[in-house]
Amino acid sequence: MTPCYPDGRKFVPAEKRAKRKIPSAANRGMGFEKDINDTNGYYLEKGLALIYKRPTPINIVKVDYAHGAKITQAYFEAQSTTDYNGVYKGHYLDFEAKSTRSKTSFPLGNIAPQQVRHLRNVQKNGGIAFFIINWYAHGETYILDASYVCDFYECKPRKSIPYRDCQKNGHLVKEGYRPRYDYLPLVERFFLK
Amino acid sequence: MTPCYPDGRKFVPAEKRAKRKIPSAANRGMGFEKDINDTNGYYLEKGLALIYKRPTPINIVKVDYAHGAKITQAYFEAQSTTDYNGVYKGHYLDFEAKSTRSKTSFPLGNIAPQQVRHLRNVQKNGGIAFFIINWYAHGETYILDASYVCDFYECKPRKSIPYRDCQKNGHLVKEGYRPRYDYLPLVERFFLK
Repeated sequence: MTPCYPDGRKFVPAEKRAKRKIPSAANRGMGFEKDINDTNGYYLEKGLALIYKRPTPINIVKVDYAHGAKITQAYFEAQSTTDYNGVYKGHYLDFEAKSTRSKTSFPLGNIAPQQVRHLRNVQKNGGIAFFIINWYAHGETYILDASYVCDFYECKPRKSIPYRDCQKNGHLVKEGYRPRYDYLPLVERFFLK
Repeated sequence: MTPCYPDGRKFVPAEKRAKRKIPSAANRGMGFEKDINDTNGYYLEKGLALIYKRPTPINIVKVDYAHGAKITQAYFEAQSTTDYNGVYKGHYLDFEAKSTRSKTSFPLGNIAPQQVRHLRNVQKNGGIAFFIINWYAHGETYILDASYVCDFYECKPRKSIPYRDCQKNGHLVKEGYRPRYDYLPLVERFFLK
């Protein structure tokens, strides 16, 4: 008989529990984010581009000035722009990097309305705007023009972008060791005209 | 006899205290910063440019996840890049805005070494980098190429940039009601070749 906890849950040995562990949406995102940051670090080192990760905005409520401006109460806020921006050959780049575990579609719930507004503004001012979407289950990553994603977001034919549409309208990012996600050649080819 | 506080300080009536108050460096900076933010707001509204103020970086030490990810201990950090970046006609812009009360020179102590490194990187990648320096006492504001300031910073012929050098090598920003500091025409004229 399988041993049980007092509350009736089946006992699972530690080594099996570790195997079964599925990374949470946030942790998966963090891994992908780290890889994009490493890629940007590589680009900076090689003098190819200067791309920064914007910090998560923080709403500061209380500051204790008696102890060297120590913030004692603050909260994370939703990003009002995108995660990344920077410069490549003088051109302004702005993008959002997202990872999804779904095999079939990328949920638009991952994108905030103010991000769509921001990306539209970037394009209106001549900047290059796109999404980098990582399909965790397929082991594939695509670069997608922000116009395509924003149009889809605003017209809402569906609440998510199908994997096939992403394949068809996006461009597959070459993966490697360094840089991890080599997206700049695609920017050069498809966004600089 | 002039009345005194118990610790010997001279008593100054409230109305006189208010008159004597000189804005601190931080407060003066805040006023100028606000004016630059308003200018950028005007540019965005008119569809001329998209320029963002980067938030002051914060080093988060403790987060209380039991109460909705409340940050309970954090500290302000020095800006590792500059205060502003964005896009103008597709070009990447990056600048630092500073105000000085001095009549004779702009102290380089206002600039951090990592900011100089950052501005050099921006220029290496084809971006437009500059300083906007407000001379509070003269009621004048100049735009100065980052190369000039960074060269001055690194060669250190002096510990501050003389007002006359700023006048000679910079370009006077037209001031008005809206936009408060109209620096874009100078970017167009002197930085877009």
